[in-house]
Amino acid sequence: MTGPSAGAAAPIHDLEEAPVKLATLRSDNPDGRLVVVSRDLARCAPAPVPTLQAALEDWGGVAAPLQARADAVNAGTAPDLQPFVPAQALAPLPRAWQWLDGSAFLSHARLMARVFGMEESASHLPLMYQGMSHRFMAPLEEVPFRSEQDGIDFEGEFAVITDAVPMGTGPAPAARHIRLVALINDWSLRLIGAREMKTGFGWVQAKPACSAAPVVVTPDELGPAWARCRVRLPLRVNWNGAGFGQADGGEMSFGFDELIAYAAATRDLCAGTIVGSGTVSNEDCREVGSSCIAERRGIEMLDHGEARTGYLRSGDRVTMEVLDADGTSVFGRIDQRIVVTGGTAAPATEVAR
Amino acid sequence: MTGPSAGAAAPIHDLEEAPVKLATLRSDNPDGRLVVVSRDLARCAPAPVPTLQAALEDWGGVAAPLQARADAVNAGTAPDLQPFVPAQALAPLPRAWQWLDGSAFLSHARLMARVFGMEESASHLPLMYQGMSHRFMAPLEEVPFRSEQDGIDFEGEFAVITDAVPMGTGPAPAARHIRLVALINDWSLRLIGAREMKTGFGWVQAKPACSAAPVVVTPDELGPAWARCRVRLPLRVNWNGAGFGQADGGEMSFGFDELIAYAAATRDLCAGTIVGSGTVSNEDCREVGSSCIAERRGIEMLDHGEARTGYLRSGDRVTMEVLDADGTSVFGRIDQRIVVTGGTAAPATEVAR
Repeated sequence: MTGPSAGAAAPIHDLEEAPVKLATLRSDNPDGRLVVVSRDLARCAPAPVPTLQAALEDWGGVAAPLQARADAVNAGTAPDLQPFVPAQALAPLPRAWQWLDGSAFLSHARLMARVFGMEESASHLPLMYQGMSHRFMAPLEEVPFRSEQDGIDFEGEFAVITDAVPMGTGPAPAARHIRLVALINDWSLRLIGAREMKTGFGWVQAKPACSAAPVVVTPDELGPAWARCRVRLPLRVNWNGAGFGQADGGEMSFGFDELIAYAAATRDLCAGTIVGSGTVSNEDCREVGSSCIAERRGIEMLDHGEARTGYLRSGDRVTMEVLDADGTSVFGRIDQRIVVTGGTAAPATEVAR
Repeated sequence: MTGPSAGAAAPIHDLEEAPVKLATLRSDNPDGRLVVVSRDLARCAPAPVPTLQAALEDWGGVAAPLQARADAVNAGTAPDLQPFVPAQALAPLPRAWQWLDGSAFLSHARLMARVFGMEESASHLPLMYQGMSHRFMAPLEEVPFRSEQDGIDFEGEFAVITDAVPMGTGPAPAARHIRLVALINDWSLRLIGAREMKTGFGWVQAKPACSAAPVVVTPDELGPAWARCRVRLPLRVNWNGAGFGQADGGEMSFGFDELIAYAAATRDLCAGTIVGSGTVSNEDCREVGSSCIAERRGIEMLDHGEARTGYLRSGDRVTMEVLDADGTSVFGRIDQRIVVTGGTAAPATEVAR
């Protein structure tokens, strides 16, 4: 460490306020190779730790070297600088030990409850499920699905990545375990999901691998857009080139601190746990649009008595991006086509045989 | 390879029929050190591959060397033979990328539906949820819980561990991806679980880390006890030294082949995926007993109008073991005390704050 605190132990607080952008490039390692990315996403340089998982397991030890590298990348002085090529990027954590996805926008939950004539769940607790985490799709990768009959949908959401969180950690200390913020597309198969929800067991078939934007950022990299453990920026979703939604993450009814505390109530969270916000949704969804087709269909059912928008078709393109106040892309862009493999055209309610 | 097929390519079939017992010993590596264990669990020797995860990622390459090592361990001729000490064992996969737990005993589901006056779910599909997989507790480890008020319960079940299974794999080919069979205690917090089920999102708080018996075995190690992708042996559960249940795994309404096919319907399964049977339960549960307290309480409610058996208390000891026809322990024993940390005594329905 150099600077004002040189010679003294660096206060933890400083280490936590290291504005850094990180990405993972394809390599021989399934966990890829970690790079530090410039603020404008134009350049990058190898990080002083090989993988993001390794960094999260020793955040206290790597935060200062990461920030030093980020400073050099942003100044253009890093010796091993290279262009940042999104096509070379994997998901920041190509595989994670744990993915816990919340549903933290109550305006969405209330709307969907109205659509389906359901009772609203108790609003003093967030909803959360454990999702598949052994693979997150790369931001520009083609995404395979088995059948259009499954009701293929996207779900734009924010997520945070934590270091190790002990069981019983409350919201205030939980906030200090948020190391990185991410942009996720939580692909969902709606026609399977309705059946699985009724079992009470949650989703398995309805929730295949998620996709992730190429870049994750430390909370303070977001500046004033990070407030109350929420991302106060619109999440721009495009479907086949047309704007679909730009709902703002600031309207979360539960902050990520509360979601982490919920997740850690009865278990330790490992370093590299990803906690999601659920589909980003705003009260004025008729103006700003939605982050998933299911919500738009719900609005159509309320307004017109029927859903008019169909789910995704093979070949459809979905992009997601978040711009900061200056118009700079925060996380880079998810830009993917889906392809229906046709491996089976079985109805969603049947086991593949 | 030596023997009848020496000089020719070894048929895959032979490699798959390698009777082997494996365990993972504590080491500097969080994934431990893989050892081959003798049939009687008395001795072991280092496996020719460092970890179980690595073995599962290259099963075709390691099956023959593993079997050769197993032969030498059983013959007592392995040069680096050592006593197998269960206290040194971690869970066979101390952390796994994926844990998908089924509920494959319909007699249990039907009984619980009667107790709670619920509609039975469609019985042509197994139930399944995604569980926490980043930690499996060691077989003799003390297990921490936050509060007795959460309704602490055990769930004895069988599980299989697969290699990589492509999306859309049906039951018949799925059977060939079953590499190992395991014994699991799926700890459950019943008073939280009821609330979480109602949300449709499945369980997060209600399902902390599972425990595992020290030894996993290849299916053919089970001999005739492995039939129709089921373990036809009783799972012996003791609670504070008293027999609680010895339900037989052969009564699974869905085989592990069908559970894997269900799990792989819309996703690739990674090597090292663990698929569970759900609590082992038999039609004659009043005679053979149960593998979880919840089932016994259900029987009491039907028979006496009220549950008489309470959930676990701090200090309680739970053991699980499976003996083969010769009385040999197949998987070794789970033998654990629980300890309530008292980190919070909040009611189960509140977020820890």
